[in-house]
Amino acid sequence: MINFTVGPVESSEEILSIGKEQVPYFRTPEFSNLMLENEKLMLKFSKAPKNSRVIFITGSGTASMEATVSNTLTKNDKVLVVNGGGFGKRFVELLEIYEIPYTQIKLKVGEKLKPEQLYEYDNKGYTALLVNVHETSTGVHYDIDMISEFCLKNHLFFVVDAISSFLADEFDMARLGADVMITGSQKALACPPGISIIVVSEKAQQRIENSPFKGMYLNLSNALKNGERGQTPYTPAVGILRQIHERLHQIDRDGGVESEIKKIGGLANYFRSQITDLPFDIISESMSNAVTPLHPTTASAFDIFTILKDEYNLWVCPNGGELKDTVFRVGHIGCLTKEHYDILISAFRDLQKRGII
Amino acid sequence: MINFTVGPVESSEEILSIGKEQVPYFRTPEFSNLMLENEKLMLKFSKAPKNSRVIFITGSGTASMEATVSNTLTKNDKVLVVNGGGFGKRFVELLEIYEIPYTQIKLKVGEKLKPEQLYEYDNKGYTALLVNVHETSTGVHYDIDMISEFCLKNHLFFVVDAISSFLADEFDMARLGADVMITGSQKALACPPGISIIVVSEKAQQRIENSPFKGMYLNLSNALKNGERGQTPYTPAVGILRQIHERLHQIDRDGGVESEIKKIGGLANYFRSQITDLPFDIISESMSNAVTPLHPTTASAFDIFTILKDEYNLWVCPNGGELKDTVFRVGHIGCLTKEHYDILISAFRDLQKRGII
Repeated sequence: MINFTVGPVESSEEILSIGKEQVPYFRTPEFSNLMLENEKLMLKFSKAPKNSRVIFITGSGTASMEATVSNTLTKNDKVLVVNGGGFGKRFVELLEIYEIPYTQIKLKVGEKLKPEQLYEYDNKGYTALLVNVHETSTGVHYDIDMISEFCLKNHLFFVVDAISSFLADEFDMARLGADVMITGSQKALACPPGISIIVVSEKAQQRIENSPFKGMYLNLSNALKNGERGQTPYTPAVGILRQIHERLHQIDRDGGVESEIKKIGGLANYFRSQITDLPFDIISESMSNAVTPLHPTTASAFDIFTILKDEYNLWVCPNGGELKDTVFRVGHIGCLTKEHYDILISAFRDLQKRGII
Repeated sequence: MINFTVGPVESSEEILSIGKEQVPYFRTPEFSNLMLENEKLMLKFSKAPKNSRVIFITGSGTASMEATVSNTLTKNDKVLVVNGGGFGKRFVELLEIYEIPYTQIKLKVGEKLKPEQLYEYDNKGYTALLVNVHETSTGVHYDIDMISEFCLKNHLFFVVDAISSFLADEFDMARLGADVMITGSQKALACPPGISIIVVSEKAQQRIENSPFKGMYLNLSNALKNGERGQTPYTPAVGILRQIHERLHQIDRDGGVESEIKKIGGLANYFRSQITDLPFDIISESMSNAVTPLHPTTASAFDIFTILKDEYNLWVCPNGGELKDTVFRVGHIGCLTKEHYDILISAFRDLQKRGII
């Protein structure tokens, strides 16, 4: 199988070979050092401002989204949240659960956020803004510079879920004034799923310290305290953290985050340039390098996913819910090359020849 | 390194070789089937009563302890909790966090639970009992038959954290009348850490459905609903779930849970019989097959851990907190043989020769 989904994605041989090693005992100085290096490189690649910290959660991206909402926001906040799809909706649900006052900017499928939609809320007493910079469900990458400018102007606490965008699109946490950046092990980090990561600015750390949050597993204050010595409060997915360590060093050796973004962007552009004559509409007004969302005009998206899986050994990424039959996605993250896309494009042309699309 | 800790433990070659495979996309009928098989075998090995279900949480055992307390208990309960060490204390902290009325039976380090301590609370209006059947921190395995009898007599909702005891000690959920059984991937399941597992009886499912719990990631109602079709609400640690699948089938082929318990019990007995003349006291009044807790009478426990790690390439399990210098533990779970213990015992004898112990 070749995997073009948006996670889990293809891992490199080096990462896979760590998966075959025994998982070491971890309450040791050796593992602490590894974790402190993970933190250092995550700070470097997210371009985090001075005195930022990194929290590694054993759990999905949603665990980190929930930890962020519950540990950095309170009932005294007034939150603006961009809701352009499944993950924006998840932020809204979390704000509901934790009873944090909010207003949502609801966008249509594929619609980008326009300045006039945002500036409607200028100078209106908001205290925080939440955005999934890349709304993975629809493949819309929002204009983060525009949002950053708005947040800085309004002095907003600025939370960026970059789960599928980190390492795929430009992101400079310090320059943007972002306070929280969230990502996951199974996206462009190209490791197995099981770990999500939260980078927190000094301001975010202060909010965490003062938070009334009482839960145990998602308690970020406790995580920060244990992290000072390179440990986690509870047994983490040690094997995946070791793979992340190798992968971060790999990226560092190979030219850093810029070079990684260039590689992923190159693959995205190559794929997009090769499919212009196929019966697919691109549904996003503004794309991430991470994924191309496609609406097939002549067939069911889910049928295409199933036929590619069962007859061509190729996984593209299906959508759930109301987009199930209308949209599928092709990812550009993970250990992929142009040759992989040539195989996928051949399969599309074969489907066309067979009258399926 | 040879790993004698209580998790992560040594995995077999078959499990490790899955760690080297690409992690597949998982929103597929293929992965759903795998998960439904995982559920079936977990029900079989825990001897769960009819209509029980299994929930797989990407997270540590603590995540499942928290999910259980928060999703199956309410402020209307009156809970009895056995607190004999670090993990009993964790249950107490969770009951505090979720404001659930409780009484704790506090035991000294290494002390077993005696009937008279339990029957002090007979007919006193309690509704539930929580116990870590094997208090991993001190190596005390409680008399589960005695506790079960008390719970049945008092009609208590009966929660058993068997994280390090499952597959190592006899456990028959149906016969005991237990409603919840918790375990983790990195204990006797001998897979990498990252997944914890909750087996829930019909009564537990009813409590979950009626629970006022509002969190998202640890919402067990949502997990049960997605689990019906072999899926999880959020991206799980797919790789570890595939390893668990292989491991459960391995156990099934090799004679089932009885044969696994016999193997672990045999190693525990062998080790214990070989160290009677060494300067170690066994601190537990009642042991699990999973681990032997040792108090060195002539040296610091933590120093022994460090020297074995740095000079002998052996990991035993250190203790944290107040037991750090007085107790270390030797595990008998994971892919270990008598030959491994011979190496460890030789190292102990060498430490003795060198005057270190």
